[in-house]
Amino acid sequence: MEINYNNIHVIGFDADDTLWVNETYFRDAEVAFGKLLSPYETLNKIDQELFKAHMRNLPLYGYGIKGFVLSMVETAIELSNNNVSAKTIHAILDIGKDMLEKPIELLDGVENVLKELSKKYKLILATKGDLLDQERKLEKSGLLDYFHHIEVLSDKKEANYSRLLNHLEIKPSQFLMIGNSLKSDILPLVNLKAHAIHVPFHTTWIHEQVAENETNGKAYKTVKSLNELLELLE
Amino acid sequence: MEINYNNIHVIGFDADDTLWVNETYFRDAEVAFGKLLSPYETLNKIDQELFKAHMRNLPLYGYGIKGFVLSMVETAIELSNNNVSAKTIHAILDIGKDMLEKPIELLDGVENVLKELSKKYKLILATKGDLLDQERKLEKSGLLDYFHHIEVLSDKKEANYSRLLNHLEIKPSQFLMIGNSLKSDILPLVNLKAHAIHVPFHTTWIHEQVAENETNGKAYKTVKSLNELLELLE
Repeated sequence: MEINYNNIHVIGFDADDTLWVNETYFRDAEVAFGKLLSPYETLNKIDQELFKAHMRNLPLYGYGIKGFVLSMVETAIELSNNNVSAKTIHAILDIGKDMLEKPIELLDGVENVLKELSKKYKLILATKGDLLDQERKLEKSGLLDYFHHIEVLSDKKEANYSRLLNHLEIKPSQFLMIGNSLKSDILPLVNLKAHAIHVPFHTTWIHEQVAENETNGKAYKTVKSLNELLELLE
Repeated sequence: MEINYNNIHVIGFDADDTLWVNETYFRDAEVAFGKLLSPYETLNKIDQELFKAHMRNLPLYGYGIKGFVLSMVETAIELSNNNVSAKTIHAILDIGKDMLEKPIELLDGVENVLKELSKKYKLILATKGDLLDQERKLEKSGLLDYFHHIEVLSDKKEANYSRLLNHLEIKPSQFLMIGNSLKSDILPLVNLKAHAIHVPFHTTWIHEQVAENETNGKAYKTVKSLNELLELLE
């Protein structure tokens, strides 16, 4: 399918698992949590219950590490039938603090691609994590100067992107979103007639997975690595 | 002091305790937390330790209810010497969920003032809480349509407002900030040569208090209620 990128003014980049590693740290945290709770349940059950609590609390807590930690604490209390010790709860808080202090591991080609694209386009970071956490990661990453600003979205649905485009005062056809999640970074944009390029990451959070029939015939491109963007957008 | 507001394009409103009640709910949560922990310490000591934990964790957790809840859990574990029960921790999580679900109580004159000012200025909400929490409050408040968009700042220091002005692509003299906190909503703007109007709330979080000599001779106005804005900005 031929897609024309000539009209683009602003490029939005997803952050986690598009510019730097993130999902891996959540998986590591789940493993550590499973070990802490192993006196009470099987790893499989612990995983399932944590996922359920996380999803149940998402409308209230939103995305990001702090809400995830609160859901871990809640799951520990419920799975242990109120028997979990204060020490174990403290260890869960520490898992969360570790996550917030992880170093930044940039994905392949990120710096060069941003450097080149920032010469021609206004780049923004469009993410649904915690603002403070994302600002800190952006600062640590050394990529701050390539971005005009950060947009934190409470969710990444069509309505959120619509508000973003209003706020940027541009038409959908002038916006290109780049990210690793079909559900959050690609499909809502395609539905709005904006542009989107998918850069898969090796791990996809189950909450972000979409059925194959949802992507059939949709007008977006997939690239293997950010490096391929430069050719597409030249 | 005569201040000229003729050049203003964008007005930023703080949200919590400027448009609606907030600090009161934090104080209520502290009282509930004190009752839960009363088997272990005096109310005074509990208050002090919670405040210390909240401040210590602020660089990591940032502002907003979720970080406050995590600090309550941490304080409960530490104050009880690891003796606090899982049930008490669960009750702390519930205090946090209650805070997130509080109804919106608008302050005096808010709706009318926003309605009038939105005819002449671009209004934005500039807050340092959690984005999801603030979006939810704005939606519940019925005030959504008066604002161009929400700006969540990870902190409200000069550097954060500088970035905001860059992002809005306006000069400091074209921006007016309105809020209840001298430290967060007024002094950083005055230092940037932007405009600021102070609308005090009856309770000020100790973290937001400033010494009198910090405000001496600074170019900002104080009004008793938002209603007075209409006269000033006509």
